[in-house]
Amino acid sequence: MDYQRILDRVHAAVKPIIGTGNVASYIPELAKVSPAHFGIAIVDLEGQVYRTGDAEVPFSIQSISKLFGLTLAFHLEGDSVWTRVGREPSGTPFNSLVQLEQERGRPRNPFINAGALVVTDILFTHYAARGGAENALIKFIRKLADRPDIGFDRAVAESERRTSHRNAAMANFMKSFGNLNNDVNDVLEAYCRHCAIEMSCVDLARAVTFLANHGVVPWSREEVLDKSSAKRISALMLTCGTYDAAGDFAYRVGLPAKSGVGGGIVALMPGECGICVWSPALEASGNSYAGSIALEMLTSLSGRSIF
Amino acid sequence: MDYQRILDRVHAAVKPIIGTGNVASYIPELAKVSPAHFGIAIVDLEGQVYRTGDAEVPFSIQSISKLFGLTLAFHLEGDSVWTRVGREPSGTPFNSLVQLEQERGRPRNPFINAGALVVTDILFTHYAARGGAENALIKFIRKLADRPDIGFDRAVAESERRTSHRNAAMANFMKSFGNLNNDVNDVLEAYCRHCAIEMSCVDLARAVTFLANHGVVPWSREEVLDKSSAKRISALMLTCGTYDAAGDFAYRVGLPAKSGVGGGIVALMPGECGICVWSPALEASGNSYAGSIALEMLTSLSGRSIF
Amino acid sequence: MDYQRILDRVHAAVKPIIGTGNVASYIPELAKVSPAHFGIAIVDLEGQVYRTGDAEVPFSIQSISKLFGLTLAFHLEGDSVWTRVGREPSGTPFNSLVQLEQERGRPRNPFINAGALVVTDILFTHYAARGGAENALIKFIRKLADRPDIGFDRAVAESERRTSHRNAAMANFMKSFGNLNNDVNDVLEAYCRHCAIEMSCVDLARAVTFLANHGVVPWSREEVLDKSSAKRISALMLTCGTYDAAGDFAYRVGLPAKSGVGGGIVALMPGECGICVWSPALEASGNSYAGSIALEMLTSLSGRSIF
Amino acid sequence: MDYQRILDRVHAAVKPIIGTGNVASYIPELAKVSPAHFGIAIVDLEGQVYRTGDAEVPFSIQSISKLFGLTLAFHLEGDSVWTRVGREPSGTPFNSLVQLEQERGRPRNPFINAGALVVTDILFTHYAARGGAENALIKFIRKLADRPDIGFDRAVAESERRTSHRNAAMANFMKSFGNLNNDVNDVLEAYCRHCAIEMSCVDLARAVTFLANHGVVPWSREEVLDKSSAKRISALMLTCGTYDAAGDFAYRVGLPAKSGVGGGIVALMPGECGICVWSPALEASGNSYAGSIALEMLTSLSGRSIF
Repeated sequence: MDYQRILDRVHAAVKPIIGTGNVASYIPELAKVSPAHFGIAIVDLEGQVYRTGDAEVPFSIQSISKLFGLTLAFHLEGDSVWTRVGREPSGTPFNSLVQLEQERGRPRNPFINAGALVVTDILFTHYAARGGAENALIKFIRKLADRPDIGFDRAVAESERRTSHRNAAMANFMKSFGNLNNDVNDVLEAYCRHCAIEMSCVDLARAVTFLANHGVVPWSREEVLDKSSAKRISALMLTCGTYDAAGDFAYRVGLPAKSGVGGGIVALMPGECGICVWSPALEASGNSYAGSIALEMLTSLSGRSIF
Repeated sequence: MDYQRILDRVHAAVKPIIGTGNVASYIPELAKVSPAHFGIAIVDLEGQVYRTGDAEVPFSIQSISKLFGLTLAFHLEGDSVWTRVGREPSGTPFNSLVQLEQERGRPRNPFINAGALVVTDILFTHYAARGGAENALIKFIRKLADRPDIGFDRAVAESERRTSHRNAAMANFMKSFGNLNNDVNDVLEAYCRHCAIEMSCVDLARAVTFLANHGVVPWSREEVLDKSSAKRISALMLTCGTYDAAGDFAYRVGLPAKSGVGGGIVALMPGECGICVWSPALEASGNSYAGSIALEMLTSLSGRSIF
Repeated sequence: MDYQRILDRVHAAVKPIIGTGNVASYIPELAKVSPAHFGIAIVDLEGQVYRTGDAEVPFSIQSISKLFGLTLAFHLEGDSVWTRVGREPSGTPFNSLVQLEQERGRPRNPFINAGALVVTDILFTHYAARGGAENALIKFIRKLADRPDIGFDRAVAESERRTSHRNAAMANFMKSFGNLNNDVNDVLEAYCRHCAIEMSCVDLARAVTFLANHGVVPWSREEVLDKSSAKRISALMLTCGTYDAAGDFAYRVGLPAKSGVGGGIVALMPGECGICVWSPALEASGNSYAGSIALEMLTSLSGRSIF
Repeated sequence: MDYQRILDRVHAAVKPIIGTGNVASYIPELAKVSPAHFGIAIVDLEGQVYRTGDAEVPFSIQSISKLFGLTLAFHLEGDSVWTRVGREPSGTPFNSLVQLEQERGRPRNPFINAGALVVTDILFTHYAARGGAENALIKFIRKLADRPDIGFDRAVAESERRTSHRNAAMANFMKSFGNLNNDVNDVLEAYCRHCAIEMSCVDLARAVTFLANHGVVPWSREEVLDKSSAKRISALMLTCGTYDAAGDFAYRVGLPAKSGVGGGIVALMPGECGICVWSPALEASGNSYAGSIALEMLTSLSGRSIF
């Protein structure tokens, strides 16, 4: 498939709508990012990179980190993860406490904030006993993306931590139900560092290619997940990966995806490639507006989707 | 792919668990069905049928009718359907009124009861002006399944109508929000007739094959939906087709599917085949217990899923 | 206490705000009433009547009928009423179905619509076995008010019935939980007739005086409720009588009261008098705006409240 | 009125049920208290004390402190308090976050935990600017009760602070909505100290007598609240003072009251006396079981209630 030509056509077509929507403003550092950015990258299973626009500009991956966090936790702990977090779409805005109360402190899925806090707690417990809790997730992502210099933006992490009263509410709430084992502040700090990781479209497309490759990182041949598990994580991305718009996103785009309020969206065509698009202005559900349009065009032009 | 061998292995493997769960009992007629039934059928794009067990025994399709109702409404009215019903997973038990109140009478998707009532209302309006509202959906299904003798069980329909106070509550509630145009009783009666349609696994597998065939009915070459629309309906099945267990079902099975409390589940492998499994005993979410296990085995043994 | 002087002062003081708010418009017949009306009446335990403004003009009592319905059901059935309806404030807008779902079809109190539908069902069952279900409540009110000519407005009742989809939703919903014994349509029709009863401020003040007189109708010496029961009904009025504004109303006015969307509010000073004020324009919670201000002034000027 | 004789009769009558229910166990220190305690005290407007049982034994006042906190905040800040907290019954269990989300971080009333956290925040801001935030509420209560040696149990406060994840969730949640001005930890610590204040029935009955006396402390003649404000606080006690059982409590007892999970309930007969009953075993809503029965008997035997 001539991905480069498709990416160029997509880029040309979305130009008029880049900047439509609102840049996330609840963290001052995120609000500074220009809404004019747009980048897209595809990495196929041979490692060939296709890109256009700002595909090499690093940005704050935010909730995309939840995908890597879950993968690492699942890699380490297997199905026991599901005793503490569900795998159903949330059906309400992504940070709602209502559902958490109805379901006695068990988040509906690992891609909403509450679920990612539980996953962070699982990772924290695992690495606290072995050392290295501080950087475990970043090291894991470096390996997936084959990029040893990936790091996080300390200013974003601290800004996020200072304004994360709602996350603190959820963490305390889950703690009250017995679904958080570590200190609330420790978990919140690790969570905010994860959100503040910086990567480019190319980095992210590369980092998710193992999912398109049935769990095996193409460049290192390391099996991060077995084939069945890779499919399952992909299924979760489809049903839960784009906040409260997952149904609409599956309907329009038809690819497993995970978005972040930094404006990034990773996606994959199983058996073919990893994808990442970035454009900071968001639609009402918190997904990149131009980014999701671009992915919709990509599946239309390529004639590929999982359905 | 040697579907027959796979079906036989699946049948042998699920035998010990057939009957686990509970047969739907809220309608007396449904409660009479033996939990010992199990059938499964696959129909490929050439019309070749593979089957095992009670694959030719007719059963009450119940909510599987929602898939055909939506297809017909979408075929007739296109995207205007989405002004009256959403396409997000519901995230709560399938007949909840809470969500309907929060969202001002607009059901979250066409596969929950409230959404199917709206779809029925759309069909009723369309055919009331043209005659034939009574049997429009059944005629449509006959065409899809290439079976002119499909009908509905009047006793089940009437029993369902008499006990459908919760559906009546939802229909009245949506009417109070202005999202039901016809008489509440007319809509409820049509809805109950749709649920009471009787088909076998073979009939149903055949009737959904057009979705696997990009919208074209293989035997008649009729394009019921264009390729993009067929994919979109499939995406909806994946995110919303199995009540509040859609996330779990996508995770375990990885195929677009729609279930009914009669114990049937239709599914499809895009580009390959239509599938239907039936076993009346249900798990807590209302999906066939043995049926969903069988589908999970089917994707494991065939190595096929959409991910 | 010189009630007449107080009523005259209240009337003069509220004149500038009469008409502030909105006349209930969901029933066409109610929407026709002029917002310029204002009347108030007090009837003491000797039957002495004090009045000012439009105190003799009949109006649609609407939800005030819920007070008489509960009194009659409690008179007939005693504490068994509470097995089917609670006595806690609803804490959400008066016609919400959410709470009804959470509490499995048992309404929180008899003064919200759902609760009054259950009370109507109780009365219907009682009188269906004895004849006279049609007019039982009206006959009871005639006795309380000592006015044999009280009736209901058929046009209002029918208009209400035609537009009562939300009440139909609640009735069907409770039926689905087994908390409605009679036919849904019969109950809805009786309910709508009760709402459409027409009385003036003087009629209504007289009709509630028995509650101020410890359960005994002053003019007939009939004990409708024992002393303890009369106090209990009064307590319910205070905690649940003014929709979702009951806390605010108790805070500002400090008297047991029951309001209706026709703009009437009945209240009482235990041991002293029955009160009714009427002015059709409503505040956001559905209580008469000028009416509740008038009652607030009445307690300020008289120095009387129950606290 | 011969209060002593009535108290003695009440004490004799409730003896068989003392201990029925469960002592609050979420704080280890509270769980240690024997369920066999029962005490009751009445203080009339002349300061005359009537008592029986363990009326002089100090206990943890817990949520009864919310009444004094509100009184002090209202005394200091007047109606501006209501911009940050409502005055409607909550209609759901006392520590629910659902309602807080629906109402954008504004608690429904000052007697649920969320509301008391806001009141504590108001007090903290007031005294932080003037010094003395640490002991302001205790000093105020000492004055009301005319007892200079009232203090709090440090072990209870610390135990409460360590286990108050749910309160921390609510405080963070309100902070996220901008309805908490001080540091979350500071507010939680002050709140826990307030809950841990220790007083006996006699102390508490004395401390609420000013409310029965129209806002004036009888022994010091100090007007803490004006007459109208005292009535208003009493109205709030009636509609919101006993958790989710306020409607039932008003129905059965008919007096303004405020309860705590330590097993104490303060109440008042306006114009007559302050009352406190204590017995640690609680009913499901969190109010003292024997205590509320005792108050119900007290109003029956005395023939007094506010209705």
